[in-house]
Formats: sequence, C-alpha cells, structure tokens
Amino acid sequence: MSQIFRSSLFFKETIDFGFADKETDLLIIDKTLLSLFPHVFTDWSFLYGVSAGESLKEWKTAAQHIETLAGFWGCQAHRQSRVIVCGGGSVGDFGGFYASVLKRGVELVHVPTTWLAAIDSAHGGKNGLNVQGVKNQIGAFYPARGVHIFKEFLLGQSLERAIDGFGEYLKMRLIENATLDMSPLLKKQNLMEILWQDLKTTIESKYLIVEEDPRETLGVRLLLNLGHTFGHILEALTQSSHGLCVLQGLDFSMKWSVARGFMSVEDQQHILKHWRQLSLPLWSDTIAEHRFSKSSLQTLFKQDKKIISTGELNFVFMKSGGRAFVQKVSLDEFTQEVQRQGWVES
Amino acid sequence: MSQIFRSSLFFKETIDFGFADKETDLLIIDKTLLSLFPHVFTDWSFLYGVSAGESLKEWKTAAQHIETLAGFWGCQAHRQSRVIVCGGGSVGDFGGFYASVLKRGVELVHVPTTWLAAIDSAHGGKNGLNVQGVKNQIGAFYPARGVHIFKEFLLGQSLERAIDGFGEYLKMRLIENATLDMSPLLKKQNLMEILWQDLKTTIESKYLIVEEDPRETLGVRLLLNLGHTFGHILEALTQSSHGLCVLQGLDFSMKWSVARGFMSVEDQQHILKHWRQLSLPLWSDTIAEHRFSKSSLQTLFKQDKKIISTGELNFVFMKSGGRAFVQKVSLDEFTQEVQRQGWVES
Repeated sequence: MSQIFRSSLFFKETIDFGFADKETDLLIIDKTLLSLFPHVFTDWSFLYGVSAGESLKEWKTAAQHIETLAGFWGCQAHRQSRVIVCGGGSVGDFGGFYASVLKRGVELVHVPTTWLAAIDSAHGGKNGLNVQGVKNQIGAFYPARGVHIFKEFLLGQSLERAIDGFGEYLKMRLIENATLDMSPLLKKQNLMEILWQDLKTTIESKYLIVEEDPRETLGVRLLLNLGHTFGHILEALTQSSHGLCVLQGLDFSMKWSVARGFMSVEDQQHILKHWRQLSLPLWSDTIAEHRFSKSSLQTLFKQDKKIISTGELNFVFMKSGGRAFVQKVSLDEFTQEVQRQGWVES
Repeated sequence: MSQIFRSSLFFKETIDFGFADKETDLLIIDKTLLSLFPHVFTDWSFLYGVSAGESLKEWKTAAQHIETLAGFWGCQAHRQSRVIVCGGGSVGDFGGFYASVLKRGVELVHVPTTWLAAIDSAHGGKNGLNVQGVKNQIGAFYPARGVHIFKEFLLGQSLERAIDGFGEYLKMRLIENATLDMSPLLKKQNLMEILWQDLKTTIESKYLIVEEDPRETLGVRLLLNLGHTFGHILEALTQSSHGLCVLQGLDFSMKWSVARGFMSVEDQQHILKHWRQLSLPLWSDTIAEHRFSKSSLQTLFKQDKKIISTGELNFVFMKSGGRAFVQKVSLDEFTQEVQRQGWVES
C-alpha cells in the first residue's frame, strides 16, 4: 500500500474548471478571487470562501472552519468526495489539511493562484497549521491527486509576487547544480514569462526530490530547504515576503558555500551578475538597510527548542557542478557566518 | 513508501510502562485511571488527563485539547517524539488523531484499558472524531507502532464491559467461520478469562483482514462491520453500550443469514445454546422489552445521506463453513427483515 506523491499536472492559459463537478465537489477558495474573477465562480453548489493569510493557518481559525464546513458540505461528504482548493499557500495549507482528515482522507485537487504556490507549495504533499505560534505544528503528508495551473490567475499577480515565486524557482535550479547558466533567462521578456515557461521543469525537479524521500525520513527532502534557514530568519525579523527572503537566503548560502570551498567564485559571480540584470532585489548590496541586532537573532533561535537542545542545525550548501547537500553546522558557526557576511549591527 | 498497519503486540499480567521514556514521551490518559491506579502514574513529566466518553470525540473538544497540548508539550515536540495513549475507545480516538497530525505524524503507542479497545479499537489504525453529530467525520488511518495490553487494567473492568468486549470477540470468530465450536469456551471460568486467553488470536484475525484492505478501498475491511449495521441502530435507539448492541447485531445477522440459506440452522442453534450457557444477554429472547417504532428507525436512516441517496447498504452475512461476506441489500429489504425478526412495534 503506497501513497503517490507526484500529482497529475495540468497547465492552461485560461481559467478552466471543466474538470470539476460543480454540483458535488467542494470548492475552497480565497475570497479575493471572487471579486477579481466574478464570472468564473457563478455556478458552484458548494463554494466556501476563506480569507487568505497567516490567520487562516492558525489552528483555532482552521478548526472553526472545519466545524462550519461540517454543516455546509461535510455532513453529506463520503470517501469518494472531492475537495478543490483554489488560492495561494495558506489556502492550500488549510484546504489540504481538511481534505486529508475528512472521512480519513478524500480526493484533493489544488488550483494554485500565486506563483509561490504554483511553483512550490501545491506540490509535494505537505500541509501545516500553526498552533500558538509554532509553525506547522499540526499537519499531514497528503499529496493532491491533481494540480491545475492557469496562467490567467498567475498573470493577475503583482511583480512582487512574481519575485516571490522566483525565489523558489531559483532555489530548485540551484539545488540541481550551482553551476547554473542564467543567460537564456535574460533573453526572455520578464520574470513572469520565465517562470511560466520553466514551470513544468521546475515542478518536476521538486517531484524528483520528494519521491526520493516523501516523508522526510531520509534527509534528501531537506535539500528543499536551500536558502530557507537564513530566509526564515529574515522573514521573521523583517516581515518581508517568503520568496523575497528565500532569495536573500540563497545569496547567503552561496557566500558560505564559496567560503567553504564548495562553490566556485566564478559560479557565484555569474549568478549574481544575472541576478542584478534581472533586477532581482539583492539585500547584501544594500546591507546597511537590512542589518539586525545579535540579540534578535538569539531570541529567534531560542524559540526553536530542537536547535537549542542539540546546538546544531542542518544547513544546505551549494556545489559547483553538482547537487546541493546538507551539512550539520553548529549554532555558533552559523552565527559567526551571519556576522561575517555583515548582517549583524555592530 | 508503505505504512505498516500491524502493530507490535505486547501482553503482560501487570501494568508496566518500562517501555516508555517518562521524561520526554507524552502520556494521554483517561483521568479515572489516575485514581484507580494512583501508584502507577507518579513519575511522568508530561501526563495529560482527559475525560473519556463521546464528548472527547467531539471535534470542538478535541480541537481545544490540541490547542492546550501545544503549550503543554507540543511546542517542544519533534518528528521523533512519541505519544502514548492509555484508555478506552474514545481516548484512543482522540490520542490517535493527535499523534497522526502532530508534526505530520509522530510515533503512536496504544495502551488499551477496556476490553473493547484491547480486542478491537486499538488495532487497525482507524481514528475518528465527530463533527456536528456526524460520527467519525474527521480522522485518519494511522496505525500504532506498538500496542501494550496489561491484564491488570482489564481485570479492573466490570462484567458489563467484558460483555462489551465479548461482542467484538465473537464478531471476529464468526467472520472467520460461522461454524464455530464454542464448547471449549464453556470449560473456562468466566468471560474475562476467555477473552484474555484468546486475545492474541482474535487480534491477529483482525490484522489479517486489515492488511488485505488497509484503507477500506477494496471492500474486505467491511467484513469488520459484521453485527454492526443493526448494532449501531440499537446503540442509537437504546443508548446501550457498543459491544452489547453488537452482540444483538450478530444475532440479527445470524437469523438473516439462516433465512437466506447462507448459514445452517444447526450452526445457529449451536451458537445460541452456548451463548445462553455463557449468560450473554440475548435481547431477541425478551424482544418485547426492546422493540422500537418504525418511525424512529426511519428517522435514523434519514441521517445517513449516503444510504438515503443510494437506497441501499452493505450488509455482512455469515456463512456456515466459511468466511463472512458482504452483500448489498436495499433499504426496504433491510427494514422488512427488522420487522420480520419482530423488532418493530406493531
């Protein structure tokens, strides 16, 4: 008995819910899409609108939605029912969790509408809810049967959200090989066109890693954290968007990989040059504006009891001419590297 | 990637939590056990007492416990953490669900303390919570790594709870073969000794069925519903205990199986004779005390929208000299059989 972690992928230029049964399927949807695309969602029997964002990922909010959904749709749901989840990461997390526990698991279909969700979070079967400030404390491994990606939704996104998606896109490419030729990208018109054109390949790269280690028991899936260790710190300290912080995390990892001799200076320079040509934000160029205090860093670490108890963390380094790899580093080593790269106020 | 549905089994005469790490494991426990066995639970770092019963299975109650547990233990839990669940069916359902969604699934160990849980519900990996009156609407397939069964807990149970367990015990035996020789049972002293002596064999029989169809996709696992279709009706209408109602459901199924020619009258008479010798309650002998109205039966069915929409249900029949089997029957046929057996007030 096995669970399939690779979802069937469908790409279309325009929004098309032809695959759905609008009489019986439940559609969980980011409310804002209803006003942005008023003609698309007129004929659903069971449409449940939610407010997207971190509050939707709060256990209390999610538990209340599950209670409400029971009366709305759940009471007549059965094993063969289907939940379609349309929105970005937080909607995907909530909807994915609901589908995973409803009737001990019903069919889940994702329709990601942000670049971040289309490239990353809709794939690989992880969902998570936050309890009392602890991120993803409750959740499941529960892959979607299908993921339908409509360009029309994605093009409605702002440039900032595309940059967000670009963080995860670059991550996937750099996991595969830090000797990354970015020149072909520069010929394309804009970030969104790059992302759309490379979407399928990027998702396939993620599935390859997920299938090697679907439930994160072997360490392989940790590779997907490339850029995220430092990225999460920036996210917590600056409240900036996830993908933007991951981009800075990739820069941080590149610098450390070069310092440790895993990545060549040439590869790093090549990537940073094209990074600037694509007008991607690079905080290390304006680091004075982004510095934080050492104590705020330490406060953050204290919240991660596992790191505190072991005194070390898994860091993903990049490798010239090969796949990224995980190495344990001590908390002290990590803090020193953050200082060495100039992020800490003196 | 597969999930193992067979738990490691451990049987002991006396209560022994030597397998646990009392510094780090979380113990979720039926509060009443704390006063019944005050010396056993003195040295746990993380002991979480709950009030057993149907209210614990209510989604709202369970969701609140999960919130509370986050602050108590969850915030420092990690993938390698372990949840030990000590109690009967409802505690097992709540604790099993919590373990299945904490950090996307941590190690679960069951210590069933009722006969019903020891024989049946602790095994096979199903947990379920009720939402707005719909039974087991939310839940997971999530088998325990280990199940530790201590006779000392079980002997502390009343005779009524042993009869409860006997319902599920007989069910397992009758699924295997309706030509069941009950004579050896009569030589034993009492119900509890019979249950204890046959416990391992009975559980193994359940695992054989569960392993054939772990996620109930093939129909084989439906066999475990033997006696439950009518049993659940009696449970709802009389508020009597689950196992006692299952016993009457077995009697109902035997009678129908004989009427349809699947089971021989001899096998039925043989079983009923020994049933009476074991002083097991047999409501059909005093059916006048247990009759209900036809309208109350119909009201019950109206709550099951799947039955109402298809007009039929899966019924498990017994077979002389062979394994029980599932047959679809119409709602009308079922109602007529209930009337034919004399359960409906005229």
